[in-house]
Amino acid sequence: MILAYIGLGNMGYIIAGHIADKLKQDGEPTLLVYNRSNAKVDALIADGKHVQSASIDHIARHADIIFTCMFNDEASKQIIGKDMIGSGQMKHGAIIVEQATIRPDTAEFLASIANEKGLHYLTCPVMGAPPRATAKLLVPLLAGNPAQRKIVRPYLENVIGKVVVEVGDSPGSALRLKLCGNYIIVTMVEMIAEALTLGEASGVGQNKVQELLAGLFAGTPVTDYAQRMTDETYDDVRFSLDGANKDTTYILDLAEKSNADIPMAKVFKNHLDKLTSDYPSLDISGVVGVVREASGLPFNLKKA
Amino acid sequence: MILAYIGLGNMGYIIAGHIADKLKQDGEPTLLVYNRSNAKVDALIADGKHVQSASIDHIARHADIIFTCMFNDEASKQIIGKDMIGSGQMKHGAIIVEQATIRPDTAEFLASIANEKGLHYLTCPVMGAPPRATAKLLVPLLAGNPAQRKIVRPYLENVIGKVVVEVGDSPGSALRLKLCGNYIIVTMVEMIAEALTLGEASGVGQNKVQELLAGLFAGTPVTDYAQRMTDETYDDVRFSLDGANKDTTYILDLAEKSNADIPMAKVFKNHLDKLTSDYPSLDISGVVGVVREASGLPFNLKKA
Repeated sequence: MILAYIGLGNMGYIIAGHIADKLKQDGEPTLLVYNRSNAKVDALIADGKHVQSASIDHIARHADIIFTCMFNDEASKQIIGKDMIGSGQMKHGAIIVEQATIRPDTAEFLASIANEKGLHYLTCPVMGAPPRATAKLLVPLLAGNPAQRKIVRPYLENVIGKVVVEVGDSPGSALRLKLCGNYIIVTMVEMIAEALTLGEASGVGQNKVQELLAGLFAGTPVTDYAQRMTDETYDDVRFSLDGANKDTTYILDLAEKSNADIPMAKVFKNHLDKLTSDYPSLDISGVVGVVREASGLPFNLKKA
Repeated sequence: MILAYIGLGNMGYIIAGHIADKLKQDGEPTLLVYNRSNAKVDALIADGKHVQSASIDHIARHADIIFTCMFNDEASKQIIGKDMIGSGQMKHGAIIVEQATIRPDTAEFLASIANEKGLHYLTCPVMGAPPRATAKLLVPLLAGNPAQRKIVRPYLENVIGKVVVEVGDSPGSALRLKLCGNYIIVTMVEMIAEALTLGEASGVGQNKVQELLAGLFAGTPVTDYAQRMTDETYDDVRFSLDGANKDTTYILDLAEKSNADIPMAKVFKNHLDKLTSDYPSLDISGVVGVVREASGLPFNLKKA
């Protein structure tokens, strides 16, 4: 079985490395890898990973399972929809596994054109940031045809995470669940920002609130975000505003289509808009600065 | 040293029991206990606890440390301010430890009248619901004069919780921090309600979102609230709407006085108002029904 990975961004790079390790361990052929810029491919090779550089065309013609993790819907439509499926060169029964957070409708569209050509398109976005990816603690959300899910699952379970959540047969379902997950993350970020600011503004001090958050939410992403906000390390971008804006737009679109009333997402969106306009290159945790300013405090409490 | 506990509500009852156990273990006199209705006092006695029923007057005249946990500011002002401090009968240097969530200003007022009489008033609200109290896993937030905090601390640490957070010298500071904590709880409840509803409305199903929440927030109050919402057990009141309304009013008042911008608390308040108006006797977790209705779903998904 020939596997491939297309799109070696922050997450794709780490996941591809884990899958390559799994293939090596099982005595399987090297993982074919492609990235828009070659540097990430070279880095995987320099790292001694069981991988081989390949073109999109080569991957389309030879791979049985192709994981993809590109930045947006347009890239998925172009490379999966046109360059691969549209080429007519793919192996019959080949399985594409979409790992990017794209619109559920885009996933349904790509699945339908794959099916027309006797190909399969699964979705498998993941919950968890790069440090969790490195630690093989991602939560993959897998959806699509059950027979193909069964084939792909061994390359995820205990490879990139301990637990694989099987979402359903519809390829859009995993994306919808991922957007629910992203809703949880962005409103959690807003909640932490507001709680720290309430503590600071009321005179009790943000550090005491941080202690409280650590007590209530030990071992969760809450403690990490609270730390980044009080340390004011928003220059270290782990969740970019580009990504946050894309996710929030998709969340609000999903809510509108579903008639779901989620006003907290709109509260976050307002603060995100302000942050993006004032400081477009910061990490999402910089939203605390916007909340501080709205509360008559400076953007940064410690740094000038 | 004579200790007393006034106010045996859901939390006070459990905490008084733990303090009585500590006194027994140390060979100290029984804990003097008072409650508005006698049933809770009788229950502690029937439970074999190291306690003794006493009047407010008796407690005021004999106790060295008096814990109080009454429902609202008015009760604290009456019993602590008038019946005890105002009686002029208290032991010189006696310490009152306020455990109720009252307004920070009320606490500052009671501390000032205590000081005038050579008495001490500390605040020690706690984070954590009754099950955490039973398990001695509360987080007490202790504030007031450091010398008196040192005297009281041994009756809290490893008695009702593992970690005592020392908030500061101002009695109002622990209440302000407690309100920050309550802000975290109520916005967390709203976030869970909206996330489950987004999952349900978008067709992925609330149970998949619950799985996600469990993965992200294992071992935190999130999983418990998500369970109560999907089980629809809002009739089992653990956090009453009376309590939620009081807390939310105090949070918004604190934010207004501090000029803190916390729009998420207002989002929750809107849903809480609707819930209180439609179903005044439910648990706070019933807010998910309001979010469902605002999203075109029925209040209950499972039950008629």
